[in-house]
Amino acid sequence: MNKIGKLFGIGVGPGDPELITKKAIRVINEADVIFTAASTKNNYSLALEIADPYISDKADIQNLSFPMIKDKLESSKAWNANAQIISNILKQGQKAAFITLGDPMTYSTFGYILTAMEKVMPEAAIEVVPGITSFHAAAARCNKILVEAEETLAVVSGAYGGEHIRSIAEKVDKIAIVKAYKNTKDINKALKETGFYKNSVAISKCGRDGEEIIAEIDALETRNPDYWTLILAGK
Amino acid sequence: MNKIGKLFGIGVGPGDPELITKKAIRVINEADVIFTAASTKNNYSLALEIADPYISDKADIQNLSFPMIKDKLESSKAWNANAQIISNILKQGQKAAFITLGDPMTYSTFGYILTAMEKVMPEAAIEVVPGITSFHAAAARCNKILVEAEETLAVVSGAYGGEHIRSIAEKVDKIAIVKAYKNTKDINKALKETGFYKNSVAISKCGRDGEEIIAEIDALETRNPDYWTLILAGK
Repeated sequence: MNKIGKLFGIGVGPGDPELITKKAIRVINEADVIFTAASTKNNYSLALEIADPYISDKADIQNLSFPMIKDKLESSKAWNANAQIISNILKQGQKAAFITLGDPMTYSTFGYILTAMEKVMPEAAIEVVPGITSFHAAAARCNKILVEAEETLAVVSGAYGGEHIRSIAEKVDKIAIVKAYKNTKDINKALKETGFYKNSVAISKCGRDGEEIIAEIDALETRNPDYWTLILAGK
Repeated sequence: MNKIGKLFGIGVGPGDPELITKKAIRVINEADVIFTAASTKNNYSLALEIADPYISDKADIQNLSFPMIKDKLESSKAWNANAQIISNILKQGQKAAFITLGDPMTYSTFGYILTAMEKVMPEAAIEVVPGITSFHAAAARCNKILVEAEETLAVVSGAYGGEHIRSIAEKVDKIAIVKAYKNTKDINKALKETGFYKNSVAISKCGRDGEEIIAEIDALETRNPDYWTLILAGK
């Protein structure tokens, strides 16, 4: 009987190939199978490009399809099918590495894999290797303190627009808004109303080709910001 | 005339020596002077231990004293004095690396250095290398999703106790509580009242010697938790 393998969820960092950890490099190198997930928005080729120098010549690379399905049941079925593919690899005693941009536990497709694996193969050994997130990379790039002393940071999705920012603003000191590529007018208005505008900055494609730092959030309104745009704002 | 040097703020990650990035390794290796800050709580020797294998033989290592002064003016003076020491190194055209556990922009002593440098030497070139934070390491270690889809994460300090958690709970989906070493009874009570208890876990010294995962937060009350204790909680 084969020993059961292990699944690693690996964050390769925010896009700058140097922001990968030693542990991610080692685990990628030891993997028998490398999994990535593709979607229109989440380009798997970038995670793969970062991981590529460390992938063993003997390793197999498999792209899982990322179901962009609104229906929860259908989406869950599709992820279970992906988990089944991974589970078959583990049952052969192999090491599988699912690579993802940023951090596997922070707005990542790996979250869906983890949830599906718990259903499909609850006995699977799973280990997660954390990665640098986009908002940490952005704070570093802009020399902007995310949180200090006893401050509170909220990390929110731009998908809810300005209303959510208004509702949370008085409870927190700093806000990181990921996916700030839509609702930009509404978000900008909310930042101004809550006193977060002055101490804010936007950044697109941080640490990657085509990186842009937008010092005045106003300018976001008249652009068509990239999907990989985030805003860091403080009181 | 000497070329002016550069200051790097470098996150060496949460404590596991493998969770350092390639970029941190390179920049540490290129530095002429390595700075660390010491305090009773923030043991500089751990950051130095992680960085040590990469420090050049020719490099000079300097410990800056971390002023634990409550008086803001006095504290600010002490940090300005530290910035002056760094600024003298930069004026000799040298590369200085200030190393810190976790991420330099997230509850780090580097924030004080950055603020003081802007006053003492506004023309200084400063570059920040992000690091893996304790809460990302903890989420990875516990196989616990930090945030997914359009969820909101609050990162708070345990210093404010349960009241702050109560005030923020209905606005967010997940809470990471750093410095959860005091007010544990009050925090625990707030987690229960707000429906965050069931989906919570505490971890001390994540990825380091003496690491402990505390699955039932109740158990924190009867312990004397380590300074490096954090709680991850979700609805």
